[in-house]
Amino acid sequence: MTVQTDRTRRPFVLEEAVAILARTPASLDALLRGLPDGWIAAHEGGDTWSPFDVVGHLIHGERTDWVPRARIILEHGEAPVFDLFDRLAQFEVSKGQTMASLLDEFATLRRENLRELAALGVTAADLDRRGRHPELGVVTLRQHLATWVAHDLDHVTQISRVLARQYSDEVGPWRAFLRIISGAQG
Amino acid sequence: MTVQTDRTRRPFVLEEAVAILARTPASLDALLRGLPDGWIAAHEGGDTWSPFDVVGHLIHGERTDWVPRARIILEHGEAPVFDLFDRLAQFEVSKGQTMASLLDEFATLRRENLRELAALGVTAADLDRRGRHPELGVVTLRQHLATWVAHDLDHVTQISRVLARQYSDEVGPWRAFLRIISGAQG
Repeated sequence: MTVQTDRTRRPFVLEEAVAILARTPASLDALLRGLPDGWIAAHEGGDTWSPFDVVGHLIHGERTDWVPRARIILEHGEAPVFDLFDRLAQFEVSKGQTMASLLDEFATLRRENLRELAALGVTAADLDRRGRHPELGVVTLRQHLATWVAHDLDHVTQISRVLARQYSDEVGPWRAFLRIISGAQG
Repeated sequence: MTVQTDRTRRPFVLEEAVAILARTPASLDALLRGLPDGWIAAHEGGDTWSPFDVVGHLIHGERTDWVPRARIILEHGEAPVFDLFDRLAQFEVSKGQTMASLLDEFATLRRENLRELAALGVTAADLDRRGRHPELGVVTLRQHLATWVAHDLDHVTQISRVLARQYSDEVGPWRAFLRIISGAQG
């Protein structure tokens, strides 16, 4: 496979990453706003997250993770270790909110963060700059920003899966054909 | 667990199913329209599908599967066996089209089909009516319509996963944390 014909990998290009990051709020908004409450609170059992929980988690990432850490890498390099990201912060943050208010907040924060990212004027050389993650050790700005994109998409996947699985029983014999319910990859 | 507190399953309610079905085109539109070509053609290797392929597949379902089969169940019951659904039709159907034209077509067909579904005036009793699937045997209208919803969400999941995995290498050590890339469920 050559770089040109390999459709399984894209090299990181900042403009492309921003193109995807800019789309996530509207895509989730179109999917979730106005859905009946039972779907907003749906989850996969135990401690798994609902669409409501996931959007709160994305908001917390906008506030404390993606652009704040990018700024640390650019301004301070590896010397400071990033603060640990609290993966459960949304349970406090989202209290008393509605899905609509969370979607509004996510869209606003994302817009502001992409504006701030643009203002940082990240160069090709900057993408190789390094920071220190509390669990992963040395990471580059490129890896951090690529993860921002993949993390968004991971949670879009999660939300769709949580919703689909609500009908695990109702689909009857189709269960075997629906990879999202059967759990088969592909 | 009682029915009221079980957040892992929803009983099929036609209005709720329609609420989700009505949202899919806009959600995919927000995610995909205007993305650079390399992302539209991205796939997971081998015969796996790109976002472009998936939207073509959804269009073929609108044309030949969901409402047409619902109509067969309501008008003819189990006597006729559904035509086999061609899971590869999109490779012909989408030729020469753009992502934007496919998104437009999907949105139009979905709108028309939901209008047609409403016109069918499906009752609670109708949901138990039965048809005959060529591979699965007897299926109810309820199962068929629930599958329409889960099938949409399955493909939203697929598209997000295909996009995320383009950065499988670029995320570096975060790979282990991103379930969408590592393949872990959760």
